[in-house]
Amino acid sequence: MKLVIAGTLALDTIETPFGRAERIVGGAATYIALAAIHYTRSVGIVSIVGNDFPSSMLETLERKGIDLQGVVRHVSRPSFFWAGRYHADMQTRDTLETQLNVLEEFPESIPNAYKSAEHLILGNLDPRLQKRIYDQVQPRPRVVLVDTMNFWIERTRDDLEEMIAHADILSINDEETRQLIGDYSLKRCARAILSKGPRYLLIKKGENGALLFSQEGETLFFPAYPLEDVFDPTGAGDTFAGAVMGYIASQDTLSLDILKEAVIQGTILASLCVEQFGPQALLSISPSEIESRREQLIRMSHFMKLPV
Amino acid sequence: MKLVIAGTLALDTIETPFGRAERIVGGAATYIALAAIHYTRSVGIVSIVGNDFPSSMLETLERKGIDLQGVVRHVSRPSFFWAGRYHADMQTRDTLETQLNVLEEFPESIPNAYKSAEHLILGNLDPRLQKRIYDQVQPRPRVVLVDTMNFWIERTRDDLEEMIAHADILSINDEETRQLIGDYSLKRCARAILSKGPRYLLIKKGENGALLFSQEGETLFFPAYPLEDVFDPTGAGDTFAGAVMGYIASQDTLSLDILKEAVIQGTILASLCVEQFGPQALLSISPSEIESRREQLIRMSHFMKLPV
Repeated sequence: MKLVIAGTLALDTIETPFGRAERIVGGAATYIALAAIHYTRSVGIVSIVGNDFPSSMLETLERKGIDLQGVVRHVSRPSFFWAGRYHADMQTRDTLETQLNVLEEFPESIPNAYKSAEHLILGNLDPRLQKRIYDQVQPRPRVVLVDTMNFWIERTRDDLEEMIAHADILSINDEETRQLIGDYSLKRCARAILSKGPRYLLIKKGENGALLFSQEGETLFFPAYPLEDVFDPTGAGDTFAGAVMGYIASQDTLSLDILKEAVIQGTILASLCVEQFGPQALLSISPSEIESRREQLIRMSHFMKLPV
Repeated sequence: MKLVIAGTLALDTIETPFGRAERIVGGAATYIALAAIHYTRSVGIVSIVGNDFPSSMLETLERKGIDLQGVVRHVSRPSFFWAGRYHADMQTRDTLETQLNVLEEFPESIPNAYKSAEHLILGNLDPRLQKRIYDQVQPRPRVVLVDTMNFWIERTRDDLEEMIAHADILSINDEETRQLIGDYSLKRCARAILSKGPRYLLIKKGENGALLFSQEGETLFFPAYPLEDVFDPTGAGDTFAGAVMGYIASQDTLSLDILKEAVIQGTILASLCVEQFGPQALLSISPSEIESRREQLIRMSHFMKLPV
């Protein structure tokens, strides 16, 4: 398997100033897989769904070529459920409800076919679970991307730091970066995080783009694609990470140049994702739209000739 | 006169998580002039100070080559005073106190030597006053940059829109942009603002950089210079505008390419400014530090070759 993704498959109820979507399919693994499959043909998911998860969505994922051997369906419990309301700024949100449900029985072992995964994304899950999944892939994957959130930073810091030490790429937002290190300067935070193990730190800043820091001391800035309308920011970060790793998996090696292109692809897919509710937009990605946004993004940033 | 600046000369009391500075010299015109004088040798200020404004600071400005013919000193009233406290994020702040004092008697007429100004910055002031100053420069200046704030957007919208219609460059922050148009999409806001007259809209986003929109439909993104420590964000936006216009004035014409370099210079001087309390850092700008930050900024953004 080129790329294995461990993450949630969930049902989300989302309220935004533009409308409300009830119990639609979401979860990190959904967004990650639908983004990654655009770049690499061999993608598998480790996850669990409840008895209420729509079979039609699992069929859609399989029809897209996503392997679901690692997805367990629980016969008697409902799916992981999240309800949230976005504020008018479409950047901040309140969580209205979280039901862990089947998430408490997330599979701890992965199918044999996944144990030789070349690339691994550990979506936002308990870091102890992330580590158990990571340990089952032998030899170690070429590239491991780890995501997390404030919940784990607050509650399982030691386990999280152990997991982060094994990551090649840590992909978190600016708030999580500051919380993880306890410092306001992203520059100092980046140095502290990279000293713990990761080769690259990708800081997601929503409409303010992304920052990439490397262990070699490089800092790169990527603007977000400027949108007229954001309908639903849910899944933007997962879509970003999925496209980044899908692109890396398609290249068979990880260099700064490859990561740069991967981040551009992640930025573009995230911009497409948030223009529709849920992961809907990811089901019909148009290559010409990607190419047009890519050109605009690059032009937006090339404001000056390089110093000689 | 190459560049005339209308704006406040103030005393500020600033509290940040790093310390407190009491009644230090501030005000938009101070920051703008000290930034602009780095690029162009002929800069004058229109403003008013109170009987408590330190003469030493006026002497410092004059020693730097800044013309103060347009600055009135009131014999019996104190200077415009602002007190604010920055939050731990160093981006948001509470205004603790505002005393208009002499600001109510801001000069409405400008010295004859300023009436042929080639470039004009109208700092954040009542838009009716901005317009009266603008009208006195004949022939019309080559380039006019206008700044404003939420206070004027809420209270004097019609006058502000009339002033903005005469601006070449409107330089405001993202919140003000959204408030001015009443829309969350910066892209749509930019189109609406540019249709009202300005050739360029410069949106300042603090640590998230700046966006430049042109009437010709160009969108350019400029990252902020990543800092380890921000000691005092006061005056960053004014420093930015001062460097932008100082650079433009030094070039004698305004094109998109010149504006790009001007924005880079503005970004760098703002990053230097916030590393010390008040305008202190602007008194000793080092050309080698500017050059080193410029190279880093450009490298940070040149993440990819232009599409062929």
